[in-house]
Amino acid sequence: MVLEPEKYATVADAFKKLVSLSKVVPRVERIAAPESYGRVLAESIVPRVDLPSRPVSHMDGYAVNAVSLAEASEEKPVRLRLRGEVRLGEIQKRRLGRGEAIRVPTGGYLPSGADAVVPVERATARGNFVFVAKYHSAGSFVYPKGADVARGVRVLDRGRQLRPQDVGLLLSLGIDEVAVYKRPRVAIIATGNELTDSLTSIHNGRVRNSHGFVFSRLVEEMGGVAVDLGVVKDDMKKIARKVKEALGKAEMVVTIGGTSLGGLDLVGDTLRKFVKPNQIVHGIRMDRGRVAGVTAIQGKPVVMLPGPIQGAMSAFVLFVAPMIGAIGGHDATMNHPVKAKLTEAWEARKRFPNFTKVVYVRLSQAETGLEAAPMVGETESMTILTSANGYVIVPEERTEIPKGGTVEVHLLPGFSYLADRLFD
Amino acid sequence: MVLEPEKYATVADAFKKLVSLSKVVPRVERIAAPESYGRVLAESIVPRVDLPSRPVSHMDGYAVNAVSLAEASEEKPVRLRLRGEVRLGEIQKRRLGRGEAIRVPTGGYLPSGADAVVPVERATARGNFVFVAKYHSAGSFVYPKGADVARGVRVLDRGRQLRPQDVGLLLSLGIDEVAVYKRPRVAIIATGNELTDSLTSIHNGRVRNSHGFVFSRLVEEMGGVAVDLGVVKDDMKKIARKVKEALGKAEMVVTIGGTSLGGLDLVGDTLRKFVKPNQIVHGIRMDRGRVAGVTAIQGKPVVMLPGPIQGAMSAFVLFVAPMIGAIGGHDATMNHPVKAKLTEAWEARKRFPNFTKVVYVRLSQAETGLEAAPMVGETESMTILTSANGYVIVPEERTEIPKGGTVEVHLLPGFSYLADRLFD
Repeated sequence: MVLEPEKYATVADAFKKLVSLSKVVPRVERIAAPESYGRVLAESIVPRVDLPSRPVSHMDGYAVNAVSLAEASEEKPVRLRLRGEVRLGEIQKRRLGRGEAIRVPTGGYLPSGADAVVPVERATARGNFVFVAKYHSAGSFVYPKGADVARGVRVLDRGRQLRPQDVGLLLSLGIDEVAVYKRPRVAIIATGNELTDSLTSIHNGRVRNSHGFVFSRLVEEMGGVAVDLGVVKDDMKKIARKVKEALGKAEMVVTIGGTSLGGLDLVGDTLRKFVKPNQIVHGIRMDRGRVAGVTAIQGKPVVMLPGPIQGAMSAFVLFVAPMIGAIGGHDATMNHPVKAKLTEAWEARKRFPNFTKVVYVRLSQAETGLEAAPMVGETESMTILTSANGYVIVPEERTEIPKGGTVEVHLLPGFSYLADRLFD
Repeated sequence: MVLEPEKYATVADAFKKLVSLSKVVPRVERIAAPESYGRVLAESIVPRVDLPSRPVSHMDGYAVNAVSLAEASEEKPVRLRLRGEVRLGEIQKRRLGRGEAIRVPTGGYLPSGADAVVPVERATARGNFVFVAKYHSAGSFVYPKGADVARGVRVLDRGRQLRPQDVGLLLSLGIDEVAVYKRPRVAIIATGNELTDSLTSIHNGRVRNSHGFVFSRLVEEMGGVAVDLGVVKDDMKKIARKVKEALGKAEMVVTIGGTSLGGLDLVGDTLRKFVKPNQIVHGIRMDRGRVAGVTAIQGKPVVMLPGPIQGAMSAFVLFVAPMIGAIGGHDATMNHPVKAKLTEAWEARKRFPNFTKVVYVRLSQAETGLEAAPMVGETESMTILTSANGYVIVPEERTEIPKGGTVEVHLLPGFSYLADRLFD
């Protein structure tokens, strides 16, 4: 099949097709809270307890009832009976009476009856008594019950990917188990007689299957489970067998290489045996990566990445990444780019003016804000991607961006790194 | 020990002390390249091969020697003898002669003797011959040897944390093993009679040891290995035993809680038995977290985090994070913040005007650039941290930042998340 560029599908139409063919929906599992780091919440968290669960002291001091201090003055300090001490985490059974004080550490629970804390440095202890020379209103140096988390008020939203402090909050709330979305399993198949998974057999022109590695890691960074099925030879029967194996092991299939629109198109030809003609899009207005394709088999989305790394990466970020997000319960990676100024003018390749373009950039922090240097180079170039730490999606109609123009830079987890890693 | 605020050490002095006491240096190990994802390179990578290793075709077409096409014209197409085809990854033994052509797929190696590719759509094959009606200069549609990576030219710098595409490049270069820095092992000890590691025993005021979880995950996000030693009771002998265990298992020790400058100071008192008085800094001009401390035992850095989460986080980002970076071979997380505009005025707490302040913020992308909303709340508040996705370090002398003022927001891996996770 040789297509003319104007017959290619737009990225938007291809994605719509992919979504409409896909019957895979997010699935939920309940897991132990400490295992939930990095997972996506499938339920909003509405705590059934307050944090703190009762009023807590802000200082090392004496818990009192503020009423006891009503008459306190420098001239005539109030004398309170000392009732021992509360330890951290201890809940006093005895109610504190008026005219009484009890020693309390920072973070310790106030006994019932107490509503204020007098810091140690503002009180004088003598024998069984404590003297306080100043009124302290109710609430002084007290962190009230429910101040951090109020029972019944939602603290974490469904769809949030849990960070350490989020899991820490779950643990603090006494939540043992949470509902999270299952990680989507994504099978990855690299095709090509020239490829090898071996670490030692690179000779005679064999090429190591590095793409399978790269995309497996990116799938995992996005919360998926990579099922790396390794290399398959350029043989339609073998490819078909591998695709069947993939469908048995995963919710989604990604092929790498073996796709073309003029020459040998083994993956495309193989997939066409699984689906009806209107269920496959092959040839997408996407630069790099026009020979990419999408379909679904048994309702499971299949994305055909081209062999050259930049085209493969384009198809990954535009099709695979959002599908992982959708199946994984959150709209991953495609949203919320950061704005940056382009450090030099960029122009689309003449061959594909009305294509969606994916431009790799190197972000850096300048005095005036973020800057993005466009990286240009051939589609096979891996060093374009090792130099880049973000990418810009340029819509079909746009063919140039002037120097200083504002672009929205996408940061794909793993592909780009945070902070020190972002700007290394 | 009760200190007056003016006797506290500055953050800078405390950090200097910590560094000068530490005798731990980055260590190197050689590991298999596919295992190196996320690790920090301990050597720069200077390839001994070119990528591609020989000229490669950019198109499905015919490899030729450009000289053969010198006379080609629409009127009189040049006739070339077709010498079969090159497959992907195949290296032709036979040198291509003048007046000859050989079919080559996109990405296929050119045979020696060939220096240009004529795309299939620009040539006409007929029997054993191919007709070309236009001159193609040497290099046409060819991706030259070494175009991506030239042998002998450094491609990855020592100190880089490897991303998927970086490892992909190593694999493409046939590099089987790389030297990386060993992950620093960081022991984490939580102290407090009120704490429990149990998932089921939260009652009677017991508090789950969520801080140990949070800081263990952050240590790992930064490339360290968390050695979570769980909870130890408020007992100096038990704490000392745990610290000894930690020193045996890790290059660095982090304690949580049990540190005070007025009341019970069990961790500080315990550590003072291990070191000379001038080898410990306890009381730091840092808000939150003034009761934090630093020292080193047996040359291994020890950081005392206060119990309340915000103070603990301050001490973590200012002392623990950069030490992990230093021991792990890269200067992690503290550098390269992103600039943002503060959405509302911020003022330091009156009590600690000349302290270094750590302010948690929520970053978001506005039309004009990044904005940071300061989060204020009590030091025990975990929800401050679950709402925040970055933090600002305000230097000692500065006590207020006006609304709209520019701040530098730090993004700690794990604490803040990338892209979709950054702006969720």
